[in-house]
Amino acid sequence: MDERLRKQIDFCREVDKEKEITRQTYLCSGSRRENDAEHAWHMALMAAILSEYSNEPVDVLKTMKMLLIHDIVEIDAGDVYAYDKEALKGQDEKEEMAARRIFGLLPEDQAQEYLDLFHEFEAMQTPESRFAKALDNVQPVMLNDASGGKDWKEKGIKLSRALERQSRTIKGSRILWEKVSKPMLEKNIELGNIEGDASLDDIR
Amino acid sequence: MDERLRKQIDFCREVDKEKEITRQTYLCSGSRRENDAEHAWHMALMAAILSEYSNEPVDVLKTMKMLLIHDIVEIDAGDVYAYDKEALKGQDEKEEMAARRIFGLLPEDQAQEYLDLFHEFEAMQTPESRFAKALDNVQPVMLNDASGGKDWKEKGIKLSRALERQSRTIKGSRILWEKVSKPMLEKNIELGNIEGDASLDDIR
Repeated sequence: MDERLRKQIDFCREVDKEKEITRQTYLCSGSRRENDAEHAWHMALMAAILSEYSNEPVDVLKTMKMLLIHDIVEIDAGDVYAYDKEALKGQDEKEEMAARRIFGLLPEDQAQEYLDLFHEFEAMQTPESRFAKALDNVQPVMLNDASGGKDWKEKGIKLSRALERQSRTIKGSRILWEKVSKPMLEKNIELGNIEGDASLDDIR
Repeated sequence: MDERLRKQIDFCREVDKEKEITRQTYLCSGSRRENDAEHAWHMALMAAILSEYSNEPVDVLKTMKMLLIHDIVEIDAGDVYAYDKEALKGQDEKEEMAARRIFGLLPEDQAQEYLDLFHEFEAMQTPESRFAKALDNVQPVMLNDASGGKDWKEKGIKLSRALERQSRTIKGSRILWEKVSKPMLEKNIELGNIEGDASLDDIR
């Protein structure tokens, strides 16, 4: 096998580990928590289906590539719960090291392309990254709502904390916030699955 | 929520079930079998990384969409082992009904787009579908090789049967057959993980 192909296959094999990184969110059925690879698949497909709701026009291929690799760093850095501020300290550095190691397995041109996509996702300075982040926040709300708020209830999540994340949704898709996340959060406050300690209108 | 968005969200929630459809192939680590959603994620990412090895130029976005949805029908029709000829009888009809139900959840334009992509994948009459099928055959070989031939050994797979599937790989990517699948199969015959009852050169 030539050097370039060998590097690409090494990368394709290495990323298999993402299937063993468990997230906090339960599947819609509530049977178990989802993993990073399943989440990334769901995100990429949702980008294809829902791109018309991005606030700004997006390059769908670029958005999908970004979503397919957005959590790959967690192979080394682990999944940190989005609401666990203590654990989030130092996470950026760990993720940067992980990105350099894992994307660094690829041939130089592709290593750079995917490292750039990862940084672009994190920085949220482009239409694609803002829309990708919106989906990354809408999807767990959709799953949590479907599972009867299972993770929210277990963790005792308050609306004020959920809104910290959902402020990103608006930046990428005002429609997905207004028509999907917001009514789902509202319903789950009414059901007692989320403690309504803030107003859903505090976000705009 | 308007009707179009409601249908799209219903589809996005329905496909979550793909995470609970288990395939035969073990993860590289051998810890457990992979599921359809993880497999589809792996496929889409491999399409992005390896598209330069397609026999013919491909539209990468179209190939990725095709791979993201190629096993969605198994939510209704189940995963049938590629080497189980008895179980494969009637599977096409079951999958067609599943495709109509599941993609039919989408608004009409998207339902048609994804139904067409699913049919295109199965028919293998376009560069994108031939390359997608090649990846769909290379990936399990890569995983089986990494796990020490775990599934091959458990099922007592013979090379002649493995070659029936790999004949599709050549149609999409001669390079991935010659440089990836073929040497991996060769190595696993030597290791005794596959019974070498045929010649690797019988495929061309």
